[in-house]
Amino acid sequence: MAAEVRGQSDAAGNASDLSDAQQSEVDSVRDQTFETRRATVPALEAILYDVMPVLDHGFVRVIDYMGDDTAIVQAARVSYGRGTKQSRQDAGLIRYLMRNWHTTPFEMCEIKYHVKLPIFVARQWIRHRTASVNEHSARYSILDNEFYIPPPEQLAAQSTVNRQGRGEVLSADDAARVQELLREDAERSYGHYQELLNEDADGNEIDPTKPALARELARMNLSLNFYTQWYWKIDLHNLLHFLWLRNDAHAQQEIRAYADVMLDTVQKWVPIAFDAFSDYRVGGAQLSGKGLDVVRKLLDGEAIDQKASGMAAAEWRELMAVLGRDAS
Amino acid sequence: MAAEVRGQSDAAGNASDLSDAQQSEVDSVRDQTFETRRATVPALEAILYDVMPVLDHGFVRVIDYMGDDTAIVQAARVSYGRGTKQSRQDAGLIRYLMRNWHTTPFEMCEIKYHVKLPIFVARQWIRHRTASVNEHSARYSILDNEFYIPPPEQLAAQSTVNRQGRGEVLSADDAARVQELLREDAERSYGHYQELLNEDADGNEIDPTKPALARELARMNLSLNFYTQWYWKIDLHNLLHFLWLRNDAHAQQEIRAYADVMLDTVQKWVPIAFDAFSDYRVGGAQLSGKGLDVVRKLLDGEAIDQKASGMAAAEWRELMAVLGRDAS
Amino acid sequence: MAAEVRGQSDAAGNASDLSDAQQSEVDSVRDQTFETRRATVPALEAILYDVMPVLDHGFVRVIDYMGDDTAIVQAARVSYGRGTKQSRQDAGLIRYLMRNWHTTPFEMCEIKYHVKLPIFVARQWIRHRTASVNEHSARYSILDNEFYIPPPEQLAAQSTVNRQGRGEVLSADDAARVQELLREDAERSYGHYQELLNEDADGNEIDPTKPALARELARMNLSLNFYTQWYWKIDLHNLLHFLWLRNDAHAQQEIRAYADVMLDTVQKWVPIAFDAFSDYRVGGAQLSGKGLDVVRKLLDGEAIDQKASGMAAAEWRELMAVLGRDAS
Amino acid sequence: MAAEVRGQSDAAGNASDLSDAQQSEVDSVRDQTFETRRATVPALEAILYDVMPVLDHGFVRVIDYMGDDTAIVQAARVSYGRGTKQSRQDAGLIRYLMRNWHTTPFEMCEIKYHVKLPIFVARQWIRHRTASVNEHSARYSILDNEFYIPPPEQLAAQSTVNRQGRGEVLSADDAARVQELLREDAERSYGHYQELLNEDADGNEIDPTKPALARELARMNLSLNFYTQWYWKIDLHNLLHFLWLRNDAHAQQEIRAYADVMLDTVQKWVPIAFDAFSDYRVGGAQLSGKGLDVVRKLLDGEAIDQKASGMAAAEWRELMAVLGRDAS
Repeated sequence: MAAEVRGQSDAAGNASDLSDAQQSEVDSVRDQTFETRRATVPALEAILYDVMPVLDHGFVRVIDYMGDDTAIVQAARVSYGRGTKQSRQDAGLIRYLMRNWHTTPFEMCEIKYHVKLPIFVARQWIRHRTASVNEHSARYSILDNEFYIPPPEQLAAQSTVNRQGRGEVLSADDAARVQELLREDAERSYGHYQELLNEDADGNEIDPTKPALARELARMNLSLNFYTQWYWKIDLHNLLHFLWLRNDAHAQQEIRAYADVMLDTVQKWVPIAFDAFSDYRVGGAQLSGKGLDVVRKLLDGEAIDQKASGMAAAEWRELMAVLGRDAS
Repeated sequence: MAAEVRGQSDAAGNASDLSDAQQSEVDSVRDQTFETRRATVPALEAILYDVMPVLDHGFVRVIDYMGDDTAIVQAARVSYGRGTKQSRQDAGLIRYLMRNWHTTPFEMCEIKYHVKLPIFVARQWIRHRTASVNEHSARYSILDNEFYIPPPEQLAAQSTVNRQGRGEVLSADDAARVQELLREDAERSYGHYQELLNEDADGNEIDPTKPALARELARMNLSLNFYTQWYWKIDLHNLLHFLWLRNDAHAQQEIRAYADVMLDTVQKWVPIAFDAFSDYRVGGAQLSGKGLDVVRKLLDGEAIDQKASGMAAAEWRELMAVLGRDAS
Repeated sequence: MAAEVRGQSDAAGNASDLSDAQQSEVDSVRDQTFETRRATVPALEAILYDVMPVLDHGFVRVIDYMGDDTAIVQAARVSYGRGTKQSRQDAGLIRYLMRNWHTTPFEMCEIKYHVKLPIFVARQWIRHRTASVNEHSARYSILDNEFYIPPPEQLAAQSTVNRQGRGEVLSADDAARVQELLREDAERSYGHYQELLNEDADGNEIDPTKPALARELARMNLSLNFYTQWYWKIDLHNLLHFLWLRNDAHAQQEIRAYADVMLDTVQKWVPIAFDAFSDYRVGGAQLSGKGLDVVRKLLDGEAIDQKASGMAAAEWRELMAVLGRDAS
Repeated sequence: MAAEVRGQSDAAGNASDLSDAQQSEVDSVRDQTFETRRATVPALEAILYDVMPVLDHGFVRVIDYMGDDTAIVQAARVSYGRGTKQSRQDAGLIRYLMRNWHTTPFEMCEIKYHVKLPIFVARQWIRHRTASVNEHSARYSILDNEFYIPPPEQLAAQSTVNRQGRGEVLSADDAARVQELLREDAERSYGHYQELLNEDADGNEIDPTKPALARELARMNLSLNFYTQWYWKIDLHNLLHFLWLRNDAHAQQEIRAYADVMLDTVQKWVPIAFDAFSDYRVGGAQLSGKGLDVVRKLLDGEAIDQKASGMAAAEWRELMAVLGRDAS
């Protein structure tokens, strides 16, 4: 599933975005192993530090983690050892905790990502305040010449039914024109950014008769599709909440691409919690009091339509979709 | 002090950025008064809802508040009424709380601002996670054609001593060139943004043969100096912490301009807490263990220099500045 | 509804717990009124500062608030004035926000309570970390001789089906014995607390030949049913979440008694948000993916039982209860 | 230093509080080792899961951790690998971050403790809201018969200068009487707790003709010196803030005993950050604006006393203590 989304970026090409120095840094941490008494998850260790491409120049890397499925059980029971050995009981308890919104045991697991993402995606992401973030500083450093250009299949018209969503995909010609416009403006912005900084791509001064504008000022000329990077650390409960919101059909496609890749890492990390999350959150539905009334009436064979339900039209449509029924 | 900073924007011109409809909305809430039993601060009521200009198109407005100086005392004492009538005792207690980092009573006051600010400033601001934020959505709405162009006196070269700060102010010619570059790029970006949206400033379709790109996509063509807006609500303790960090000499000038205006509102709102904050945080200094050793030795008339102090050069310079002494 | 719960305490008797000095402090703040431009809610003003009895010696008082229903709308729209005048549109938007978990606009309203509650209730309550709290200090002051004795109708045996709940109500004799035990121990503890402090109820030294043990030590002799007090301030979103969890049938009766009274204050304060909350959270239900499958099958007339559903027995029972059907 | 504090409990005796089953659980997790690519700290691994006694029946155990000193550097630089190999540069950066309150890189390290502590200590501790907590449930389980009795050297009279502190230590006779009172009340309370639960220490019913009161009710008869347990997880920045506040001379001795042991674990875990913390926070001092004026005048050889300084008497005393001077 994630593969399709990531398909919009050429994984091979994307990975090559790393400079040799960066790649060798990644390789060097990958190659070291240590002995630990801590809870350890081989499936997550296998991808630790790897660059998982997202969009055209972005990535997600798992940098560190703490805890596993048994750590949830251990905390819920305040036990002296790990969770029980009977994994069936552990799964039952984890499902019980998820079902009944006992969220604190899920806070006992923690994960840290290194993420490269367009600034407009970073701005949506950062609204979640329950994580720790260290972002690459454009006051201190110079941003790279990397910006996001949506692939044609992602270029869609403003939705006419959902005021904050996308509708029909553009024609090939229209898409090409959009891409061209975005690319030209980004390249010009970056060229002027370098001119303001008076520094070329190799770090050399461009014009010795000119000043180098402060980096904290020059950056304001870059557009919102330029890439930034950050370290982002969060506990499992808040990560699942983030992924639940950001994996939603109402979320913008570009942030969903990241959520998708991160869901895969959660599945590797805490497979039992992931299954419970899939069943009770992602695959489930919240019914309102009015929605429950409708379901009860339908089960009793009573006729009921939107008007009689007291629900708004959009609510009714959503309910019928959830029940797998025709909305009319 | 705030006046000088704000001086970079023409207050009159800035205020006129409000459309007639917006101004009439502001006037209408300003004109209504109600009776309340709640703690009320006349000095803050006097500026409630007012547009206080910051930078060239930004503003700060106080929208609502809860509590006053006596609310801090009331919570610290868990009393049945308000703080004592003896304002001298109240001031003593507030100073004691501030001095000893008893921060929870300051959390009992809350304030809500409406702020208009460049996106690059918003990105620094949002790192403070202890506030509630509702930002104007560029997925849902179209951003206005308003962007920040620093005035010449703010256009400075990259600092050569501080890797994330500003050094010498640019010459008039260099400053003019920078302004021109920034303005041209912003205007071109906005023009293309409209073209992508296929909608002109009056909300009319530009080219009926073209699609209107989804707003959530088109916005990525705008640069970081475009203005956004948000409602921002925070308690007094966390506000003071924000202002302490953001009013610091290391903070970027553009966010300090906002901090400056907000400090004025705090002074109107909770004058006793403001004074304690000014004395113990803003006007004070944190000395390290090594720094204290140096002070003790100097007081005892012993000779001590940076090398003997065990402090880094930058630390030594900071300490000497704090003590009002020559760093050599 | 709240009346029944509160019925377990004699409201009149409870109110008389306030000393004359406390009552006169309450009266004095109640009697003052001010002019404000802030959003004001007459229905909440009417009960501001009032002592609302809970349990046998506890209470809830609303001390301050910020915002109303229109403040939610105002923040969601980032508007210059208040919410629209068309209250029908406002209600539609508030319901939309609640339904789609757009929680930040609800954070724009804030409320502050003064609560008196048994320590074991305070310990459950404080787990919610998204509020500001100032608790009466037993290091600094001496606690009053007030402790909670459950009324007979609340004295129940350990549940045999729910390992953390109550089952059958005790017989009158058994209940009387429990009350007697609790009362005797609390009174002896308090007597010894005074002896340790060497101070009687009037603040006089008991035995001039004895020391007064530090208050921070003496308090450890008190039991968990003694009353404490705090100021507790929280935003509407987090308050509703707290009330949703604490008003649940799984929550302990004693904390539900407080949630009940606070729900009444929310209804007075933000009636539109309260209605949306009642419909989408309290009156609604979260169905799992498996639960939805069952509903779809039942609607299609297919036979399905617990075993075939893949659900645990407890989950199945809960689902059938939600659907208003026999669990067998 | 920690040893002295812990000295008040007999470490050997304390450790024996663990039942054989608990000890074998601890041993079993201690004995397992795994291979990991994660940052690993041998000095912390060496004490992982160990029971470190605190007070007479309490303990602290490190259960898990994430990150090390290099993780702070890695996040501050948003680097692809770990911190630099040049540990001198790393230390310089960590000191710079600590000095300038750049706190987010310290949030990138996380630690999880299992703590057993008296309820009145737990109530102070829980005020720190930036941690994740799972406490042993007395609604679900039965608490053990373990309560804190302060050793004679900790039994002190109420301070006459500091309204929330301790003064002179009690005489041996007075101390013995206090211990006796506390012990008798705790034992009686626990006996009645068992009677209410109708269950003896071996889990057998005491009186078949009596009901077993719900656990959530029976617990209210226990006093605040009974022990509880929890899992507590926090990031390094917030842990240091907690330890800074709780290691302060104003904090109650019993919570300082825990802070002391935890400081030792921090030193093992992140020695460079620990040193910076010791220098800039614990060993340093915050001077007010008025305090700085005094220091500057003293350095200039001017005479200045409390009156002329504008400082309160207590502030003046604190300042003179910090400067190592006579307060008169």
